[in-house]
Amino acid sequence: MKEIIKNQIDSHKAQYENRGRLLITCPDQPGIVSAVSTFLFSKGANIIESSQYSSDPNGGTFFIRLEFELEQLQQLRVELENDFQPVAEQFSMEYSFRYVSQLKRTAIFVSKEPHCLLELLWEYQSGDLMMDIVMVISNHEDTREIVESIGIPFYYIPANKDIRKQVEEKQIKLLKDNNIDVIVLARYMQILTEKFVAEFPNQIINIHHSFLPAFVGARPYERAFERGVKLIGATSHYVTNDLDEGPIIEQDIKRVDHRDTVERLKKIGRTIERSVLARALKWHLDDRVIVHKNKTIRF
Amino acid sequence: MKEIIKNQIDSHKAQYENRGRLLITCPDQPGIVSAVSTFLFSKGANIIESSQYSSDPNGGTFFIRLEFELEQLQQLRVELENDFQPVAEQFSMEYSFRYVSQLKRTAIFVSKEPHCLLELLWEYQSGDLMMDIVMVISNHEDTREIVESIGIPFYYIPANKDIRKQVEEKQIKLLKDNNIDVIVLARYMQILTEKFVAEFPNQIINIHHSFLPAFVGARPYERAFERGVKLIGATSHYVTNDLDEGPIIEQDIKRVDHRDTVERLKKIGRTIERSVLARALKWHLDDRVIVHKNKTIRF
Amino acid sequence: MKEIIKNQIDSHKAQYENRGRLLITCPDQPGIVSAVSTFLFSKGANIIESSQYSSDPNGGTFFIRLEFELEQLQQLRVELENDFQPVAEQFSMEYSFRYVSQLKRTAIFVSKEPHCLLELLWEYQSGDLMMDIVMVISNHEDTREIVESIGIPFYYIPANKDIRKQVEEKQIKLLKDNNIDVIVLARYMQILTEKFVAEFPNQIINIHHSFLPAFVGARPYERAFERGVKLIGATSHYVTNDLDEGPIIEQDIKRVDHRDTVERLKKIGRTIERSVLARALKWHLDDRVIVHKNKTIRF
Amino acid sequence: MKEIIKNQIDSHKAQYENRGRLLITCPDQPGIVSAVSTFLFSKGANIIESSQYSSDPNGGTFFIRLEFELEQLQQLRVELENDFQPVAEQFSMEYSFRYVSQLKRTAIFVSKEPHCLLELLWEYQSGDLMMDIVMVISNHEDTREIVESIGIPFYYIPANKDIRKQVEEKQIKLLKDNNIDVIVLARYMQILTEKFVAEFPNQIINIHHSFLPAFVGARPYERAFERGVKLIGATSHYVTNDLDEGPIIEQDIKRVDHRDTVERLKKIGRTIERSVLARALKWHLDDRVIVHKNKTIRF
Repeated sequence: MKEIIKNQIDSHKAQYENRGRLLITCPDQPGIVSAVSTFLFSKGANIIESSQYSSDPNGGTFFIRLEFELEQLQQLRVELENDFQPVAEQFSMEYSFRYVSQLKRTAIFVSKEPHCLLELLWEYQSGDLMMDIVMVISNHEDTREIVESIGIPFYYIPANKDIRKQVEEKQIKLLKDNNIDVIVLARYMQILTEKFVAEFPNQIINIHHSFLPAFVGARPYERAFERGVKLIGATSHYVTNDLDEGPIIEQDIKRVDHRDTVERLKKIGRTIERSVLARALKWHLDDRVIVHKNKTIRF
Repeated sequence: MKEIIKNQIDSHKAQYENRGRLLITCPDQPGIVSAVSTFLFSKGANIIESSQYSSDPNGGTFFIRLEFELEQLQQLRVELENDFQPVAEQFSMEYSFRYVSQLKRTAIFVSKEPHCLLELLWEYQSGDLMMDIVMVISNHEDTREIVESIGIPFYYIPANKDIRKQVEEKQIKLLKDNNIDVIVLARYMQILTEKFVAEFPNQIINIHHSFLPAFVGARPYERAFERGVKLIGATSHYVTNDLDEGPIIEQDIKRVDHRDTVERLKKIGRTIERSVLARALKWHLDDRVIVHKNKTIRF
Repeated sequence: MKEIIKNQIDSHKAQYENRGRLLITCPDQPGIVSAVSTFLFSKGANIIESSQYSSDPNGGTFFIRLEFELEQLQQLRVELENDFQPVAEQFSMEYSFRYVSQLKRTAIFVSKEPHCLLELLWEYQSGDLMMDIVMVISNHEDTREIVESIGIPFYYIPANKDIRKQVEEKQIKLLKDNNIDVIVLARYMQILTEKFVAEFPNQIINIHHSFLPAFVGARPYERAFERGVKLIGATSHYVTNDLDEGPIIEQDIKRVDHRDTVERLKKIGRTIERSVLARALKWHLDDRVIVHKNKTIRF
Repeated sequence: MKEIIKNQIDSHKAQYENRGRLLITCPDQPGIVSAVSTFLFSKGANIIESSQYSSDPNGGTFFIRLEFELEQLQQLRVELENDFQPVAEQFSMEYSFRYVSQLKRTAIFVSKEPHCLLELLWEYQSGDLMMDIVMVISNHEDTREIVESIGIPFYYIPANKDIRKQVEEKQIKLLKDNNIDVIVLARYMQILTEKFVAEFPNQIINIHHSFLPAFVGARPYERAFERGVKLIGATSHYVTNDLDEGPIIEQDIKRVDHRDTVERLKKIGRTIERSVLARALKWHLDDRVIVHKNKTIRF
């Protein structure tokens, strides 16, 4: 299994070594697309895909995501980034170049329920989620066997609210030492402190087991059952300091009816949770999500 | 148009004059299905459809809906209902016989936005919603033309919170004088008082323009926009004294994205609202909804 | 009603008089986006929306749709189109400028079943389908009343296969005399000849009452019932000479089950048909559909 | 893992040892429900769930599925079945008693693509698919490791059309020796002969990678791509001698667009295939599917 995954990743890197992406946020004004596309053309790049959005053509914020192919991209990275600076300054851009062959270093947090982790591992093995899973961190031992069986390091860090500070220090050190780009909370049932969240802005992706903003907080399926809703859902979002209030990346729902017990709602919910989290993560890995205020632009 | 509708209704009544329904709620215990089906068989009825549900086979509440065909049903109604009483008493049943050829007398309330009303009228004309629309009541004149053009009386009753008491008295009198069975709030933007609601328990169906319990109260689309949700929805429910908290009959959602302005959310929302309300009303008209506590059993 | 529609259209035209669109299809090569966006910028236009697609970055076909705002657009049209010609030639472009304030002149064809027509009229009145409905043509009188009530000319042209040639000559003359841009077959149950279709390439939009390519041809609901499918669908496509084989614009489905009779499938199907056709037409009116070979690019 | 599964199965058997099901197909006539429910009541059984359907109340076929709880069910099975015979004869019933604690003995066939097998194994481990997986048979070695890791015997039987006869003999012997109740073709890419199919009527469940009857036969995703459909689907059905023509149990679809390559359609398709097959199998295991002619009644 490890061999297959390694080959898959290597072949992906080779295939896309000349593939880059440019993400820009700036005040809207005429001439942005022209300037950027002319810059890329002047460098010899071919634009493969382009998506843009303006919150308001008259004085709003402009967002663009370009994917391009450029021969010798790896050698030209410094030059490309340096030469773009004047363009960026002219339009007061916040921007970022990304390189498709440079997989995002990912850490997955999980507690007892394995379904979201398993979905991510499955999509990872099948090549649908291109990332570098550097570690799985859990406050339970349950998923160690499956994680290690595909060659991913598993860290068991017991956690509860009394030792939160020490636990998070240990976790942060591990994440920083390993240059983690993305943290996925795959049904990790511990609350993260402000300090932890501040270390990884827009880098922590959570799956909440309700259709937010309905049923913020604990026990959403129990409350959905009480309320007698006819649809239940799940929401994947970036984690901020406001519990369950971060920018939403993806949501989905399934139909339920009066016959469904709380237990059954949870089962149906698991199916939604795993696909919603996998889709949200995929968009993030593909650099398709831009956070703006408390919302996401999803290209 | 009026002629077509009249013929349609007459032919429906003729086709189903021997079709009855029996709805029962009672404590669960063995022997209920046997007793009821044996009773119906002894009367010569053929069970066409049967749906049942038990909240808990050990001491919960049992619900059943039977649809049956019985020769000479109209003549046998009194006998049928009388003879069923001992069975009902034996099992402590709350029950109700319904007769398909006896269309529910319906009043539709509407304010300025016509889309839900138009959908109901369209489904009514096409024969998908079998009811007797006795009147449309509105606090605006906008929809008078279309309503009267298909022969339905239109009552213009201006309303605002200062004159709520008088307005509701006028409305209640009109509804009672006309023996209204069902009141549909098809985007009627006035709050109903406790007194009004108490007059028509489980008879008032509302459409709320959000996926409840998300965005209870006013301006749901504006708040959905602010929150950056990726799905918007609508909810049809029976009206109780707790605003937007009544038993949910039906809900549905549609996907939206960052490009959708509040205006666009409202347009998309209208499509959801009209189909959700129409489906909820259809189930109610077909006697498929049983209210239990604050939830619906939907057969 | 006529007054409301007229006001709505006038206000739409005023609001978008400076809004243009540019649709391009050409061989893919580097520099296209740069050239086009720089051209638009040089003319003072602000790009509001841009979507692009390449069938293959190495030697495939490139498609782009740009929506832009340009002061004095109406006065600058000729200049704009003339000045674009050298750019177009350089990249061997097929292209077309469209002007949002210039509504597409539309003819709707219908037979007996009115549901698709009614949906289009409803979306037209609510301002969701911005077009100029110049006429409705039908081989039955059924829908005359509703059509004329909102001020649209209604042409009753009886049709059957024996008089097809004369009927189509009459229809084509009517359409040509009125400079019709789009023909919508809203459940028009007559087959069109090769000659008719050739007069209006990629301008005729049909709704087929199945999920193509399943159940090509007649009686799809009956055949769906026979086959015992668990989903039924509808497909909107451009009409070509191969029956039900034209480029697909939109499809959708709904769940059905063993309880659904053919009659019930037809009712459910009508709901799908009307929403699928309305969505397909909306995309067409918004210049979001590009036909390439036998497929559509839908931006 | 093996231990967890074993415990789960044992606890399921204990919980449902008194739970039975009765499935009946017979000519419709009044009195069936009364007779059956009275019989069950006389035996002391409590009806937990009941679903019925009549193809036509006047002389059609009647189907009913009852789930009941009966103390000492295991000891009373013979008596129950014997005593029901007169009732069955009176109404010319085809019927079958099923016992929930008696898990269906299942064999899964798979070729190279593992996604459907993995989904089934995952749902099996999580307790959502209650069955006894007795073996996995494959014409490739790829999935041996994962299958054996959870304690399920794996049989590698190379296959191709030249040795079909010998291969099937070997397979049939294996299946018969192990008293297999259900055969799941989880993307098994060999055609089964008439002889094989005849051995297991309504016991072989296949997943076809298209929305049947569209794209019957080979290479459905390639053909879907060619046709430019906007939705792709999958279908799970019982296998009969007519390729892809057996009774459909479940279907589902997902939206695709012009950007999706054949490769991408296959990826999306895999997600549909695995959930459709899992749902179909679950209904079968729960005795919710009755085959009638070439269709399924799904309770």
